[in-house]
Amino acid sequence: MNGLEGIGKATNIKWHEPSITRQDKERLLNQKGVLLWFTGLSAVGKSTLAHALEDELFQCDCLTRVLDGDNVRHGLNNDLGFSPEDRMENIRRIGEVAKLFAESGVITMTAFISPYRSDRDRVRANMKDGDFVEVYLRCPLSELESRDPKGLYKKALQGLIKDFTGISAPYEEPLNPELTIDTSELSVEGCVEIIMGYLNERGIIRRVSRLASRG
Amino acid sequence: MNGLEGIGKATNIKWHEPSITRQDKERLLNQKGVLLWFTGLSAVGKSTLAHALEDELFQCDCLTRVLDGDNVRHGLNNDLGFSPEDRMENIRRIGEVAKLFAESGVITMTAFISPYRSDRDRVRANMKDGDFVEVYLRCPLSELESRDPKGLYKKALQGLIKDFTGISAPYEEPLNPELTIDTSELSVEGCVEIIMGYLNERGIIRRVSRLASRG
Repeated sequence: MNGLEGIGKATNIKWHEPSITRQDKERLLNQKGVLLWFTGLSAVGKSTLAHALEDELFQCDCLTRVLDGDNVRHGLNNDLGFSPEDRMENIRRIGEVAKLFAESGVITMTAFISPYRSDRDRVRANMKDGDFVEVYLRCPLSELESRDPKGLYKKALQGLIKDFTGISAPYEEPLNPELTIDTSELSVEGCVEIIMGYLNERGIIRRVSRLASRG
Repeated sequence: MNGLEGIGKATNIKWHEPSITRQDKERLLNQKGVLLWFTGLSAVGKSTLAHALEDELFQCDCLTRVLDGDNVRHGLNNDLGFSPEDRMENIRRIGEVAKLFAESGVITMTAFISPYRSDRDRVRANMKDGDFVEVYLRCPLSELESRDPKGLYKKALQGLIKDFTGISAPYEEPLNPELTIDTSELSVEGCVEIIMGYLNERGIIRRVSRLASRG
């Protein structure tokens, strides 16, 4: 059904429900929409892993979207600062946008520290069961301090950055994340493999990953 | 290139640019990302036309996303009211989200009155040349008052709705819209055909529309 016949002439235009559904789009893309919500401390590998997974999914002809600080803080949320209220609104909007993508059949990934359980749980509660996949990336603090790609831990330990998550501000670990991955124990490729396995098991993708075939 | 080899072990995780580009996604989808920004008075047919076009594009295996009051005002922008400031912020956020979709290769459509030229021009200025396609839908006011599917014109004319666009609040016509369509002169199907022609000409889609083959 193409929806045109039922509408008729312009003089009869009326509000109507969308006739192309999420399921239609998922069939077109041959994948299911989902939101992979990466959470964890600075330098744990959220953005790196999201982009590595995007690379791998693209090899399997999957359509993805990564939302991270680069494309959200400079665009949609460029009116928000770092007050507690603004941080909460930041996560809320990211959740809403990610939901729009997931409901379009896109494999959507967000890469934000998102330290508060209540903020993450609100995003989860706003989505259909199974659409929100919390991926908790963890790593010993000592390891993160030695990675410190942007020198942020050094500054935070010197007291130069206030409210730095993990040092001078709390990080609330997920209680029941769908996936927990320790990035000090696995390579990026190893982390990607775990998530690809999860997506396959859950029927979100129906392709054999290149990685799997390497045995 | 899959981007994995260059990253190495988790201990070397670092911030990196996304390696899957918009062009990669456009190749995968066999279409180009674009934003069709429908603008015009209440009841002119913005949402109806966006959904009819979505139906038609789906028949051509195109991936689309429609943003309209239904999915934006109740979600992302549910914190906004109808003050001048909030109306401007409403359009700004819609523009930012639509940009994220268009840059993912999706044919994106927005269906909002968006009465102010400055608001629309700000969305245009925020996007790459050619990504923003302003579709001005017009129709004589007398015709809109007789359509009046939600009884809003009647109430506005009775003075029961203040700041109703076209009656008690201004609508600023686009000066150089990419497309102008009079919905009192064409059926929905006719309007869809015009836009499909434009998308084909511009190389955004490379399919023969069912409509075209009907002669």
